[in-house]
Amino acid sequence: METGSNLYLGLVHYPIYDKRREIVASAVTNFDIHDLARCARTYGLGGCFVITPLESQVQLVERIVHHWMEGAGAAYNPTRGESLSLIRVSRTIEEADREIARLWGGKVEKVATGASPHPNSIGFGVLRRFIEEKSRAFFILFGTGWGLTQEVKESADYILSPIEGQGYNHLSVRSAVAIILDRLLGDRTL
Amino acid sequence: METGSNLYLGLVHYPIYDKRREIVASAVTNFDIHDLARCARTYGLGGCFVITPLESQVQLVERIVHHWMEGAGAAYNPTRGESLSLIRVSRTIEEADREIARLWGGKVEKVATGASPHPNSIGFGVLRRFIEEKSRAFFILFGTGWGLTQEVKESADYILSPIEGQGYNHLSVRSAVAIILDRLLGDRTL
Repeated sequence: METGSNLYLGLVHYPIYDKRREIVASAVTNFDIHDLARCARTYGLGGCFVITPLESQVQLVERIVHHWMEGAGAAYNPTRGESLSLIRVSRTIEEADREIARLWGGKVEKVATGASPHPNSIGFGVLRRFIEEKSRAFFILFGTGWGLTQEVKESADYILSPIEGQGYNHLSVRSAVAIILDRLLGDRTL
Repeated sequence: METGSNLYLGLVHYPIYDKRREIVASAVTNFDIHDLARCARTYGLGGCFVITPLESQVQLVERIVHHWMEGAGAAYNPTRGESLSLIRVSRTIEEADREIARLWGGKVEKVATGASPHPNSIGFGVLRRFIEEKSRAFFILFGTGWGLTQEVKESADYILSPIEGQGYNHLSVRSAVAIILDRLLGDRTL
């Protein structure tokens, strides 16, 4: 089994916080889909779930994936389709979680991420070793907007340590995904 | 001196290759500016140069930066202005290089990046140690489009090893910047 194939990524558009800490559904961003799919393919992930309950957004993601996998984009740049083949759309976190559980005989653990420290967070090295054991799947959730809700964090099996910046913790979700995948699956001997 | 303050990032829109390996100028992407500025601020970089010879693109970058530093964006989300204050626009790589050289008494070395292996490339660990010495500045160049030209690579003091994916080397420039900054400046003991 390839390293990374027991790791699944979830890009959460609902439920998340907005600027005023109200719970909202955010719009899907085309750049997010491409960047996350390309990262997921680079690190050999099992899959990448775009989570949105909005029917128009579900269709948008399906249209993007179709364009690059089978439409005009497939001829223009085949490497995009190769990465976008990892994209799945789910209406809820639970729906995606059930799909992974079905593939892994129920053995899937949810990992929440965020920019703020949390008293019970798990470090990158520990989660890296868990993934390397390959005995179960991990579903790592990234919030768009102002991040995952408290409820989602509390329902996760683990909360991953934040990326510590020099007094600034406002990375884009695209950058956070790239850095976290490299810390969990990249070559640490470099 | 803070770690990272002797590292400068250059996002090159000319000269770069297009899909057909012709040398072109690419258009500035709003997401790139934000994502790179936020990464640069997170890792405490000295600055981030957007390199484009096109006057319309120079003005576009200046408008984006102004919007978030002093315009309506500054009130809406002050953390964006904090990161975008690191953005400078230069017409050429040489112009940016001269600006860094002026700040560092001439001691600046150029580092080219790319997705393909190169026989004389420098590893992440070696460049990391060079940066930690803090005796000189490093100007790390990222190509948009299909990457930096051969000429730019050959004129650099170093060529950084590529990020090795599992048989797939097509990360976005946004993801590559995030991963490379974390490898050069992030906590490697995690």
